Formats: sequence, structure tokens, C-alpha cells
Amino acid sequence: MSAVTFLTPITEEIKLVEERMRAQAEAAHPDLRAALEHLLKSGGKRIRPTLGLLVGSLFGAPLEKLVTLGAAVELLHTATLVHDDLIDGALLRRGTPTLNARWAPPATVLTGDFLFARAAKLAAETDHLPLMNLFGETLSVIVNGELTQMFTSRGLINRDNYYKRIYAKTASLFEMTARAAVMVSPAGEEASEAMRDFGYQLGMAFQIVDDVLDFTGDQTSVGKPLGSDLHNGLVTLPAIYYAEAHPTDPHILSLPNGGWANNENMVELINQIRASGFARQAMQEASARIDRALTQLEKFEPCAERDALENLAKYFVDRKV
Amino acid sequence: MSAVTFLTPITEEIKLVEERMRAQAEAAHPDLRAALEHLLKSGGKRIRPTLGLLVGSLFGAPLEKLVTLGAAVELLHTATLVHDDLIDGALLRRGTPTLNARWAPPATVLTGDFLFARAAKLAAETDHLPLMNLFGETLSVIVNGELTQMFTSRGLINRDNYYKRIYAKTASLFEMTARAAVMVSPAGEEASEAMRDFGYQLGMAFQIVDDVLDFTGDQTSVGKPLGSDLHNGLVTLPAIYYAEAHPTDPHILSLPNGGWANNENMVELINQIRASGFARQAMQEASARIDRALTQLEKFEPCAERDALENLAKYFVDRKV
Repeated sequence: MSAVTFLTPITEEIKLVEERMRAQAEAAHPDLRAALEHLLKSGGKRIRPTLGLLVGSLFGAPLEKLVTLGAAVELLHTATLVHDDLIDGALLRRGTPTLNARWAPPATVLTGDFLFARAAKLAAETDHLPLMNLFGETLSVIVNGELTQMFTSRGLINRDNYYKRIYAKTASLFEMTARAAVMVSPAGEEASEAMRDFGYQLGMAFQIVDDVLDFTGDQTSVGKPLGSDLHNGLVTLPAIYYAEAHPTDPHILSLPNGGWANNENMVELINQIRASGFARQAMQEASARIDRALTQLEKFEPCAERDALENLAKYFVDRKV
Repeated sequence: MSAVTFLTPITEEIKLVEERMRAQAEAAHPDLRAALEHLLKSGGKRIRPTLGLLVGSLFGAPLEKLVTLGAAVELLHTATLVHDDLIDGALLRRGTPTLNARWAPPATVLTGDFLFARAAKLAAETDHLPLMNLFGETLSVIVNGELTQMFTSRGLINRDNYYKRIYAKTASLFEMTARAAVMVSPAGEEASEAMRDFGYQLGMAFQIVDDVLDFTGDQTSVGKPLGSDLHNGLVTLPAIYYAEAHPTDPHILSLPNGGWANNENMVELINQIRASGFARQAMQEASARIDRALTQLEKFEPCAERDALENLAKYFVDRKV
């Protein structure tokens, strides 16, 4: 499944989202404009605006509102990435230098703030108050999640904590996007709830697949060293499954006591997890979530948009990067 | 003029704003709650919510909306202070340790983000779309102003640049608060425009007085070393007036070329400015702005709220800290 399959029906609409995002920097200081240009050029597959455009089109939402929503969601996402990369000291994202690799931290903090401001402004331009409320709430969930992760001891092996973390980090914004796209359409509560769950399941699956690819992915296309999460004390689903099956493994036992900082031991543990079936098991969990998302879709009449959403959902587990 | 004069009519309402702000941390991580508690406890005179409450009451806006607006504005203001203090490496604000004096930069970045999120959520809860739009726009102006200041060479002596900077930094939020308070009232465009200018003039005066107090203030109550702006290469109104009158003063000539970094020369220049009448001249400019604000007030019938707003406006130039 290539990215093209789900993008084809909305290639033109995604261009409008890009234009809308770029227009946000118009009145800004030239250096800030340059920074935003850099961020937007290096910026991913626009999977969140795609989700919003497809869900909204399925329910007859006006294109203008979906473009505004898509730009708001993607700028919000970009803002959180800018601050995340600063906090993590990351120098590369998707193979391109991060903002903080080129700019001093103060300018990076403020650029993130500017993106938050423009995202909030765009959200307001959808002219839909419950959507604005949802937007503010989702941003709180994301930031609170990041802070909670920061205050949680590294090396923690806890599945419940894991699900909460990936919800805050990733699924909350997918959930919001799908729900908001229905909000600006004529469809009612039933569609909204179905699409909320659709977005939620997609988001959870997306992050689980990310975490699996950290173990199994092609290192060059993932763009990070293998097992980088574990090296940073972040115990994700494949490692949690492995820990549940091997509770007395000395490397596992060492994790909550700072053992994740021992590079040699972690390389061993990462190889053990790779050799085990637990990465595949985690992938199956992601697939099960996508299946559940698809049953939500089936509640609605078949059409081109539904097909595209089905392809989008399947891409979430088929992707290699 | 004591702060009490203008606060008396709304002592109870300000308590509601405080409660509303504190409630924003309820679902947050305990450490984040503690940080917010610290920020709210050490937090100033609530002059922005006071402005919103008084203006809104003058035009019969519902209290609930004014409390929500006040909490949104004050949290937005607090968020910008948190990121500012981080960027400046400030360890004290209003005599109490800043967040970044106690927390690591990553937690400080995220706490600011959380405050932005809650401010946006509160703004959405006013149930008023043009207000939401104005809120997003104002946040963009503030952040763009900070970035512009960051990219502007220090030591720049330019009055136009100064006015633009203090508008973005301070006046834009006062302007927005007064305008938004009318928006949620039954009053029309005329009241909105009058109060927009009222808030604008108050905000410009507020910052000019701040900048004058940096030269003339009682060092212990201002809480910063005398002339700290100039020591940081920030040329404010008293120094600009002085420079316009003494264009060949060697210390003035040195400023755009980094002369502001020479501590001894700056102490001399600060003393020259203090001995000159230019701090008083800047204060007169602030007073003229307050007079203009008062003429806006006179367009409306006398009442307790109008009296309180008059007292508030006068306090802006009479304050010593």
C-alpha cells in the first residue's frame, strides 16, 4: 500500500492546506518566515489534514472549513514537534535538520509559540465553538502528557502508562481531527462518535507501529538508531510484551533501576526483543485496532471517500517508516 | 492613588477569576499543578482581568463571561512571562523565584505551553467566535513582537521601533482585553472602538511607565538593577529622548556598536539620563496617553464602573512599581 492510494482523491485539497499554512507567516518577521518555510518544507506526509479532509468529505463538510481545520491541526502538530525537538535536543527529524539544530533555544521556543498562536487563530476561523473547545482541550492533553512523561521515572514497565502516554502523544490529535471534521459537517452525533473512535484507533495504531519500527525498522528510513526508545529509558509495547513474558530477565529487571543507560546491555536486550515474536505481537495489536476502526467505517454507505479512508487506515499498519 | 481604589468594586469578581485560573490545573500532573500554584500565588495585581471586569460591567456584559475572559487573558499573560523568563534566564520576577529558577528548561517550556492551551480553552468557553479570533491574533502579535525584538540588533535607537515593540509586548493584550469585554456585552461598535482605544492607550502608558521606572524607580520595589534595560541593549523612551537631544554624546554613539555592553559607560549614561528631564518627559507622554484614554471614557454616562475605570487609568501613571 503506497501513500499515493489514499492521497489521490485529495491531492488538490492538500495543496490548499499547504497554502493556508504558509499564509500564516505572511505578517511575521522575515527570519520567522524563513523558519516556518523550513519547517513546512521538511514536513511529512500531512497525514492529519488528510484524515480531516477525507472524514469531512465523507459527511459533506464544506471544503473551506476542512482546509482551515487541516491547517490548524498540522500547525498544532508542528508546534509540538518544534518544542519536543528542543526538549530532546534532537538535531534531525525526518532526515532534515530540526529548527534547534540551526536556531538558538530562545528563537525555537518562540517559533513554537507562534505556531500555537496561528493554529489557535485558524481553529477560531472554522467558526465553530465546540471545535475550538475541543482544540484547546486536546492541546492540554498533549502537553500534560509530555509533562507526565517527563516526570515519570524512565525504565518504567507499565502497559497502562504506555497506553495513556501514546494517547496523549499521538492518538488524541487524530481523534480530535476526525471528530472535528464531522463537527463542521451536517452529520449528527452517531457519525461524530463513530469517527471519533475511528481517529482514536488510527492514532493508537500509528504510535504502536512507530514503536515497533523503532525495533524492526530499516534504520536509514526510520532515521534514528535502532531501539532508540529503550536507550532513552522509554519502554514501549514490544519491550513491555517481552518483559511480561520474561519477568526475570536480568536486563528487564535492571530497567526501572536505570539499567536502560547501560548501552551494551540494551543492545543485547534489543536483539533479544527483535529475535522474539513480540514486535510482531505488538504489530498485531495495531492491526486489531485498525480492524476496529474499519468496522466504524462500515456503518456508512460505500463511496470514494470511504474507500480512501479504508486505504488510509490500512496504510497505518503497512507503512515501513 | 492606591491599587485599592480601583479594585474595591470588583474584589469578589477577581476572586472568581483566581478560582477559575486555579481550576485549569485540576486534571494536570501533580508536579504541573504545583508549578501552576506557584505561578498563580506569585502573580501580580491581576490588572488585565480588572480591566476586563470593569469595562464589561460598564456595558452590562454577563459576569460569567467576564470571569472566563479575565482568566483566559491572565493565563495567556502568565504563559508569555514563563517563556520570557526562560529565554532571558531570569531567576526572579516580582521578588519571587521564576519557574526556571526551580525547574529545568524542558519543564518550563511545557508549563508555558500548558498555560497557552488552558488560555485558549478558556477563550473558547466565552462562546464568542470573534473573541476567539482576536485572542489568536493577539497571541501572534505578542510572539512575533518577541521574535522581532530578538532579531533586532541591540543598542538600536529608534522611536518607531520602540512603539511597535511596546505595542506587541504590552499594549496589544490590554487592547484586546478591553475590546473583548465589550464584545461579550450588548454594546455596539462605537463602545467597542472607544474601549479598544482606551485599552490601547492604557497599555502603551503602562509600558512607558515601566520603562521610566527602570531609570527612576526605587530599586528594591522595582526588583531589578537600575537601568537594566540599557545594560541589556534595550533603548527605551527616556534614553531615546536623551539620544535625540544629544546625538553626539559618545555613549549614545557607542550604543548601536555594542557600547551597551560596557558596564561603566552605561552606568554613566544612566546617571546622565536620570539627571536630565527626559524621564519626566517620557512620563508626560504616558500621562498624555492616559488623558486620551479618559476622553474615551467620557463618551459614556457616569457610573460606579466608569469611576473605577478612571481610577484604574490614573493608577497606571501614578504607580511606583
